[in-house]
Amino acid sequence: VSVVTLLTDFGGRDTYVAQMKGAILAVASEVQLVDLTHDVPPQDVRSGAFHLMAAVTSFPPRTFHLAIVDPGVGTARRAIAIHTARGDYLVGPDNGLLSPAAQRLGGAVAVVELDKERYWRPTRSRTFHGRDIFAPVIGYLARGARLEEVGSPIADFASAIRFPEPKHVSGNLEGEVIHVDRFGNLVTNIPEAELPAKFSTRVRGQTIHGGAAPHYQAVPAGNLVALVGSMGLLEIAVRDGNAATHLGASIGDPVRLVSN
Amino acid sequence: VSVVTLLTDFGGRDTYVAQMKGAILAVASEVQLVDLTHDVPPQDVRSGAFHLMAAVTSFPPRTFHLAIVDPGVGTARRAIAIHTARGDYLVGPDNGLLSPAAQRLGGAVAVVELDKERYWRPTRSRTFHGRDIFAPVIGYLARGARLEEVGSPIADFASAIRFPEPKHVSGNLEGEVIHVDRFGNLVTNIPEAELPAKFSTRVRGQTIHGGAAPHYQAVPAGNLVALVGSMGLLEIAVRDGNAATHLGASIGDPVRLVSN
Amino acid sequence: VSVVTLLTDFGGRDTYVAQMKGAILAVASEVQLVDLTHDVPPQDVRSGAFHLMAAVTSFPPRTFHLAIVDPGVGTARRAIAIHTARGDYLVGPDNGLLSPAAQRLGGAVAVVELDKERYWRPTRSRTFHGRDIFAPVIGYLARGARLEEVGSPIADFASAIRFPEPKHVSGNLEGEVIHVDRFGNLVTNIPEAELPAKFSTRVRGQTIHGGAAPHYQAVPAGNLVALVGSMGLLEIAVRDGNAATHLGASIGDPVRLVSN
Repeated sequence: VSVVTLLTDFGGRDTYVAQMKGAILAVASEVQLVDLTHDVPPQDVRSGAFHLMAAVTSFPPRTFHLAIVDPGVGTARRAIAIHTARGDYLVGPDNGLLSPAAQRLGGAVAVVELDKERYWRPTRSRTFHGRDIFAPVIGYLARGARLEEVGSPIADFASAIRFPEPKHVSGNLEGEVIHVDRFGNLVTNIPEAELPAKFSTRVRGQTIHGGAAPHYQAVPAGNLVALVGSMGLLEIAVRDGNAATHLGASIGDPVRLVSN
Repeated sequence: VSVVTLLTDFGGRDTYVAQMKGAILAVASEVQLVDLTHDVPPQDVRSGAFHLMAAVTSFPPRTFHLAIVDPGVGTARRAIAIHTARGDYLVGPDNGLLSPAAQRLGGAVAVVELDKERYWRPTRSRTFHGRDIFAPVIGYLARGARLEEVGSPIADFASAIRFPEPKHVSGNLEGEVIHVDRFGNLVTNIPEAELPAKFSTRVRGQTIHGGAAPHYQAVPAGNLVALVGSMGLLEIAVRDGNAATHLGASIGDPVRLVSN
Repeated sequence: VSVVTLLTDFGGRDTYVAQMKGAILAVASEVQLVDLTHDVPPQDVRSGAFHLMAAVTSFPPRTFHLAIVDPGVGTARRAIAIHTARGDYLVGPDNGLLSPAAQRLGGAVAVVELDKERYWRPTRSRTFHGRDIFAPVIGYLARGARLEEVGSPIADFASAIRFPEPKHVSGNLEGEVIHVDRFGNLVTNIPEAELPAKFSTRVRGQTIHGGAAPHYQAVPAGNLVALVGSMGLLEIAVRDGNAATHLGASIGDPVRLVSN
């Protein structure tokens, strides 16, 4: 059974996501459908790209990922499908949304522009390509269609979305917050491999000593703690609390690691 | 594999929806379950009817739709199942919730009242027929039971929910807003087929010139745009913005098309 | 097809739930996945235990339930799997979260501590055992692994979470509100079997006469009504309204049944 995931900015109040699933099931009724998230802030391609990148490696190889955050729907922006080095498929608009995930899955080995209308819904709207073009295409791919059947090869695709990389500045490592999760944990762009042997973490005027803790409960309740999170990135949390609220922190805030 | 969809006003905080799925799976463990939405405002049958109607045609024929917005649960209101001309099944309370969807699927070819207790859960509550009656019944239908097995034929069913139709008034077309979606787009009751050749759209004291645009980005960011949405109905949007907020608009607001 | 349910406090904004599903599907791609709820308040083990207990009996026997509300992740708290008398499996942290559900399913017939690393993900984080330990383990169980394969037998497990039982005090039955649902209905801890033949219900200074009503519409719109809800517990509702708001009520408020 092929696994097909969906990520959008459609929310849960309307039936847009369900309509996409209906269109997938009309083509491939036996797939395993999994929602990644549909609460990407409206039209926030960057946030969608982060969540897609965060999720894809937890799925088995040869998973089919459909991602739609598509403010340019109906314009000349291309619709694409990517085959990754790990064997996964990424389908969505060519606006950078898919790029970080493709990179995390080993890079693209083939990319096509979706221009074969016989793999689309017979009747199509101008505003909902998620349902009318992308959903049936990923259905056909999940059923076994080859990438070259559903589109024409292209040499490049948008990689406009890049997450900042931490920098070494006068002996310190300067990173930043790239995501705030539901618990108020601050996810930074600093990977475990780049952590100094011993360091303090500075964020929003506060200093967290002792490097990376083994778990949240290494500090007393209410205290700040730095630790390596589930993506392998340094995170800042408050034990039994909310670091974003506690610090007044948000995406983009600088995080500095001072070696000691 | 049969596709079974669920639409309720139960929200996601409680496990009511999951309990219904458990009751379906107890009867038919191999169905493909799809949530339409569970964020219908509590007891808002009209809103539920809109969302069900909006979603059903995106699914393949012979899909099984379970819809529960049921303020009259436990009273004498009937529980019904409808077989549509397109081959789909609609199951829910007989309070008008299913009527617009049935009409959009070609009309009802058979309707039964669910009165065969052997297709219900052995133990039943008085307040949760969604789990105790409707869920197992749709499970049996999805497994292949005939409509006449699960209920007794009835000649009519409630069609209390009707969405207003646009009217021609002194050369103009007078419609109204029937839905506001997550993006703040205003969905009107004016179908594409009734659009004049050339027209301006008037809503909340503003005028949108140029008829229906091909896509959202046909206007500069922040501007109002009228276009045909994914249901084939005229929608009013703000490019990269929220039309409902921008105009202070809500359901029921008049929308007038002036031919020019 | 095995049914695997998931209950967490992860919310829907992030992809944590999806990552767990990916890890399950990497082991067992053909399971039927069902979300119980992911809107448990962050780290509220008691609320999670309530929702899990409320949902499990609606599922067929031999369902696999994965529940993660785990403020102690990464510490010495044990990870466990329980086999219940009814034939279900419960997997999660040993912090009391699973205990009320186990009891409702007939009690535990076997319990193991999850200490067999070959059933875990090859690479593991310190903060996301839901994905890295619990998810693959439940995948293997759903595929048919025996409890003793995935862990070592233990004699006991945490049962710290208990819901209060109603008490008889000078001829009255004294209970309390243990849950407020989406509709504002107040779920009490008083089971149907303990209701007096005739009684009035007192809550927040109000008295509801006439014992338990057959359904919500037994009273005029806007009025308070007491009735037996879908869990077999006495509930207090407002017809076409919200009892929690109407009464200013919340979890822990006393509810007294006065026989008459």
